[in-house]
Amino acid sequence: MRIDIITVLPELLRSPFEASILKRAIEKGLVEVHLHNLRDYTDKSYKQVDDYQFGGGAGMVLMIEPIDKCITELKSERQYDEVIYMTPDGQTLNQQMANSLSLCGNIIILCGHYKGVDQRVRDTFITKEISLGDYVLSGGELGAAVLCDTIIRLIPGVLNDETSALTDSFQDGLLAPPVYTRPADYKGMKVPEVLLSGNFPKIEEWREQQALKRTERLRPDLLK
Amino acid sequence: MRIDIITVLPELLRSPFEASILKRAIEKGLVEVHLHNLRDYTDKSYKQVDDYQFGGGAGMVLMIEPIDKCITELKSERQYDEVIYMTPDGQTLNQQMANSLSLCGNIIILCGHYKGVDQRVRDTFITKEISLGDYVLSGGELGAAVLCDTIIRLIPGVLNDETSALTDSFQDGLLAPPVYTRPADYKGMKVPEVLLSGNFPKIEEWREQQALKRTERLRPDLLK
Repeated sequence: MRIDIITVLPELLRSPFEASILKRAIEKGLVEVHLHNLRDYTDKSYKQVDDYQFGGGAGMVLMIEPIDKCITELKSERQYDEVIYMTPDGQTLNQQMANSLSLCGNIIILCGHYKGVDQRVRDTFITKEISLGDYVLSGGELGAAVLCDTIIRLIPGVLNDETSALTDSFQDGLLAPPVYTRPADYKGMKVPEVLLSGNFPKIEEWREQQALKRTERLRPDLLK
Repeated sequence: MRIDIITVLPELLRSPFEASILKRAIEKGLVEVHLHNLRDYTDKSYKQVDDYQFGGGAGMVLMIEPIDKCITELKSERQYDEVIYMTPDGQTLNQQMANSLSLCGNIIILCGHYKGVDQRVRDTFITKEISLGDYVLSGGELGAAVLCDTIIRLIPGVLNDETSALTDSFQDGLLAPPVYTRPADYKGMKVPEVLLSGNFPKIEEWREQQALKRTERLRPDLLK
């Protein structure tokens, strides 16, 4: 899989891809992530890539021309399954969307900034608009990092058994059950007996009950 | 405002706080962000902070002891309004939650990793569990970065007029209207006439209509 991220702040995105699971996935050659600085695609003075919005109002808007140049260049080099724009008014990201995006070959992710991008970019180039949730960020960069994390960890070979995604929340429509580790007694707070019993069918049953209970209590909407 | 982030991967969180709006907010002294490496709070060999889960199953779990030590030390130094745990089974983050957290004085954010933290940590120390949305990340670090971004940009003085938060999506229960910038004609794609008219009451009316239309089309649930 290859992910091309177009941004005005490539430096913001460095450390998330240089640590932990994303770093290992890149080192293993399971995914390539390329950061493109939008300012390299403008011939305006001061590398300008944004401008005031027509009609007045606060907030700068990313211009269509440098984005057109960058996307057109990338598309001339290979085919892309999706050109994604991160925006709070996009489709809300969920685990099913992440599962299906993890099957893509090549994707482009465009990060908005400040007030977003010229609407003509969205009308012309974007095939999918994705939102992390009903809240606003100062730019699309953290959104892109989150999207990449959700997708990349699902690519076969990225997670080892210790970090298996199969028992994650949402994969079976339920929240995950509570987990405990050593010590069994910490300052008088004890781990539930059943987990120490060695009776695996019983442990499995307890976990299923707990997952269901937790989902009923915290996210009854998931059970509908 | 002071934010203390407890993590096993402080290096993952460096660049988001060293760029753009978060960096400027820190430089202006409007917020302090302190990263705490959980491994500094263990006396186990190899700086171990996680262990296998009781009852078997894939995925490591963060142990209670180093987290207890770190949180107890922080709490001995100052009062905290919230001790937040980032987890996919938490309350789903939204703009109202961000607005209200931006009024806090001091908060702690604990990042889970792999299968999460020992349930006794959640039962004992955590006052609020927050999820970015219905998807799973490889750790709580990107969640913490997103949460910090949503909160910090709302602190008075962080955004200047150019990046004003008042007209953002969700602040008035509607998605933001489309935005356009120069050129007015790009390869035959034109900006809506009204935005070039200079008739500001009419522009305002058009924007309200567009915001409503877009919300009806993309997120009818917000209008209920």
